[in-house]
Amino acid sequence: MGTEFRYHRRVQFAETDMAGIVHFSSYFRYMEEAEHALWRAAGLSIAPSEATIGWPRVAAAFDYKRPLRFEEEFHVAVRISGVSNRTVRYGFTVRRGETVIGHGLLTTACVTKRPEGGLQSVELPEGLVERLKGAMTEQAPIEAIVRPADS
Amino acid sequence: MGTEFRYHRRVQFAETDMAGIVHFSSYFRYMEEAEHALWRAAGLSIAPSEATIGWPRVAAAFDYKRPLRFEEEFHVAVRISGVSNRTVRYGFTVRRGETVIGHGLLTTACVTKRPEGGLQSVELPEGLVERLKGAMTEQAPIEAIVRPADS
Amino acid sequence: MGTEFRYHRRVQFAETDMAGIVHFSSYFRYMEEAEHALWRAAGLSIAPSEATIGWPRVAAAFDYKRPLRFEEEFHVAVRISGVSNRTVRYGFTVRRGETVIGHGLLTTACVTKRPEGGLQSVELPEGLVERLKGAMTEQAPIEAIVRPADS
Amino acid sequence: MGTEFRYHRRVQFAETDMAGIVHFSSYFRYMEEAEHALWRAAGLSIAPSEATIGWPRVAAAFDYKRPLRFEEEFHVAVRISGVSNRTVRYGFTVRRGETVIGHGLLTTACVTKRPEGGLQSVELPEGLVERLKGAMTEQAPIEAIVRPADS
Repeated sequence: MGTEFRYHRRVQFAETDMAGIVHFSSYFRYMEEAEHALWRAAGLSIAPSEATIGWPRVAAAFDYKRPLRFEEEFHVAVRISGVSNRTVRYGFTVRRGETVIGHGLLTTACVTKRPEGGLQSVELPEGLVERLKGAMTEQAPIEAIVRPADS
Repeated sequence: MGTEFRYHRRVQFAETDMAGIVHFSSYFRYMEEAEHALWRAAGLSIAPSEATIGWPRVAAAFDYKRPLRFEEEFHVAVRISGVSNRTVRYGFTVRRGETVIGHGLLTTACVTKRPEGGLQSVELPEGLVERLKGAMTEQAPIEAIVRPADS
Repeated sequence: MGTEFRYHRRVQFAETDMAGIVHFSSYFRYMEEAEHALWRAAGLSIAPSEATIGWPRVAAAFDYKRPLRFEEEFHVAVRISGVSNRTVRYGFTVRRGETVIGHGLLTTACVTKRPEGGLQSVELPEGLVERLKGAMTEQAPIEAIVRPADS
Repeated sequence: MGTEFRYHRRVQFAETDMAGIVHFSSYFRYMEEAEHALWRAAGLSIAPSEATIGWPRVAAAFDYKRPLRFEEEFHVAVRISGVSNRTVRYGFTVRRGETVIGHGLLTTACVTKRPEGGLQSVELPEGLVERLKGAMTEQAPIEAIVRPADS
């Protein structure tokens, strides 16, 4: 199970709604935060200040199994579940300890901005996927030592 | 095409991100706003102050075709795309004028709160789906008159 | 009382928190939405696609008198409460019908982007404040007719 | 300078806006996150599941000195700047390293829910302020050692 990256987080008050649980849209932010943390762990940024390419979403989905509540600690496990010439698909599992909160996915395309403002899909930077996968195998054992309850 | 409900909206500044387009998580809020507007059009509230039942999400998904930008006007068309004893599935299409921005769905379960705080799925209130569908057929022609560009 | 602009809104589910009321940070979004609606009423956009100037915040504040709850309708009244060479200060009152929910203010500076990425304050565009004030006097009587309960 | 509590954070993508900087409303969430982290450091929760009292905002304000950008690390220093029988006022300074990003404050009231749904202000729990202050003096030196760049 070394081929995933884990992002640790706590539920913040503003992420809850009047039903007393985390609002369902917050999980899409959690997945994105985990994706960007994975990039940082690989020594990359998804949006460096001098960027000529961007990463808009093609698809996003989440299946909800159990609710999260205020101040609960959880983690988001990220995997790469699919790659095409111009897109990366990530798979996510959100867990509180060993309890599965839900599963999700994000498909993101590599694009450049056209002069008139439109977005043009382009091929993934060479070596990107290998680099992200490298951060997964390196990261998982370290966190497993620090936070055994989450492994 | 009278069997849908249309919710009209404008992109707000805080919904954009540093890529200059609407953040992908905002579309989940747009879908929910449209769902709740449908309930109001049917004379209902999804969370009245004396509620004994609630409507947590079971699944949420969105496929992105084109970006939305600051101050653009758009509408969210809502349909009921599936019903089981204890869940309702809505289908959504977001359009700017006649341009499709994306498609989405939300599956929501009917639940009661257990005394110890957990959620227990229960059967849909009788007549709910018919009432929501009634608001769809009544609503669509009225808005089509007011805003022909969106029809 | 003609020298204000009124922006009408309904509380959305995602804007509430587990306390069952609108989260306090949402009022800052409400004020901004009202400000931008005022600019549109004046035939302007605060962020047109070809913009060379921007409007970052210098100060923001809100005093809370009563809570707002899910699906309640309210309006935000905007006034210009102060102008300097390089800043505009807006005053806001949020009301549900005639009930005051709270008062706020936003001070915003006119800036250009420096080549290295920093922000440089510059003088307000000539005639801007007069144009915004013009939209206030024109707008208020129209809305008073449409929605007398709010006047 | 031991009488403050420091909360460390990184800017997330969804907190930015099309101007390329953190949206001004995000700072109110940052202040609240720091306040709640202070309570946890004091062994308390601002919203435990069995709560009979709540803490709505009376006032909130922020003065902006410099922008924050995507992925920047910053901290929020919290102080108690005023106490009355029924309210606590916190003062905040947001810094990126030693650079001041801005100053803010939150005034929060202690309330109980009335049977009909209204909020009734009540006296602060005995010993609360002392306990929060205790968490400040204990916390600051520890973090100063761990992250000297922020001190």
